[in-house]
Amino acid sequence: MRWNKISDAVVRRLPLYLRVLDEVARVGETQMISSQELGEKAGVGSALVRKDLAWFGEFGKQGVGYEVEFLRTELKRILNLDKVHKVVLVGAGSLGIALARYNIRRFESDDSFSLKIIGLFDQDPTKLGRIYEGIEVRPLAELESFVRENNVKMAIITVPADAAQDVAMQLVKGGIEAILNFAPIKLNVPEHVRVASTDLTLELQRLAYYLSGE
Amino acid sequence: MRWNKISDAVVRRLPLYLRVLDEVARVGETQMISSQELGEKAGVGSALVRKDLAWFGEFGKQGVGYEVEFLRTELKRILNLDKVHKVVLVGAGSLGIALARYNIRRFESDDSFSLKIIGLFDQDPTKLGRIYEGIEVRPLAELESFVRENNVKMAIITVPADAAQDVAMQLVKGGIEAILNFAPIKLNVPEHVRVASTDLTLELQRLAYYLSGE
Repeated sequence: MRWNKISDAVVRRLPLYLRVLDEVARVGETQMISSQELGEKAGVGSALVRKDLAWFGEFGKQGVGYEVEFLRTELKRILNLDKVHKVVLVGAGSLGIALARYNIRRFESDDSFSLKIIGLFDQDPTKLGRIYEGIEVRPLAELESFVRENNVKMAIITVPADAAQDVAMQLVKGGIEAILNFAPIKLNVPEHVRVASTDLTLELQRLAYYLSGE
Repeated sequence: MRWNKISDAVVRRLPLYLRVLDEVARVGETQMISSQELGEKAGVGSALVRKDLAWFGEFGKQGVGYEVEFLRTELKRILNLDKVHKVVLVGAGSLGIALARYNIRRFESDDSFSLKIIGLFDQDPTKLGRIYEGIEVRPLAELESFVRENNVKMAIITVPADAAQDVAMQLVKGGIEAILNFAPIKLNVPEHVRVASTDLTLELQRLAYYLSGE
């Protein structure tokens, strides 16, 4: 892992800034952007924008702002997005397939998108051999060797809760360093592996808290 | 909105505790749980468990712990999950349909699950009238009135980025108070509306930061 001293809260905002810069570059009207404008579009205060970026270098000029293409290139480099990352997705259920379709189409249509699903895995024998967006569903038994042989470092888990820990351990054995987990359990993985959990039920339950009486 | 003084960080952990209690109740081996055990299973320190729960009342006994069924009932009440909440989903693409299927099947199979999608909406005329898990896809033009007439307070948005803000405003006009947003943009909504964003690309880009050199 890199730059351990920089907090994950900072790292979380970098892709937001990159997205704003991508959009500004796409529209192509301006070559400079102020921290105010960048912050406003990213939903972050301008002081925080300046502070976040200062962790990584001096990218802007006081009173002038940031050069859009330069900052964009730098952010991609910082986020490791200047090269393509291969990703495997485990769990070819409806959510998994929806994510795979979205990812693969985006990768094919967006030059600057650098995350590419190259393998789909499932344990259900009736799903094996099915092809989605050109990618065949493989058996779980091949997961670890596929990950190792293809030097895959990122994985998405969309299997049910009771299968997720086992899948995670196979991924780690194969060399995976980062997991996006949709299964509704907390994964136990070694310290060098980063897990991001997206738990839709937890999000909805949290939102319910804020509802007024009905 | 309720209990504004309690931070969202606390609220976010309550569904985690509830999930642990649901599982302990399902297994049925024990009627009491210590803050240590609850914390361990939720991935939270025991002191934080006690502190979080103390915001809402005195639920445990020192040296004994929490009565599982009692705390479960209380947490459901606190989270507003002691009654069914109707939800609309806007965007009947592959992700939207996957989420709807998952939600509706879960609602039908799990007595204690209280979030129920009752309406699907899309602007694509070729999708209108299709039925998923018994729910018909309706046109966006009917969204606001459907939300109002059915007294729906929660919504899930899975439309593309350029349509999401417009959809959010229609939802708010209809009376929606909480939105789970999958579109990759920041929604501008009135203060009384709570938005949770789940942005898969941002999560993956953040994870890429932590990869070692390849």
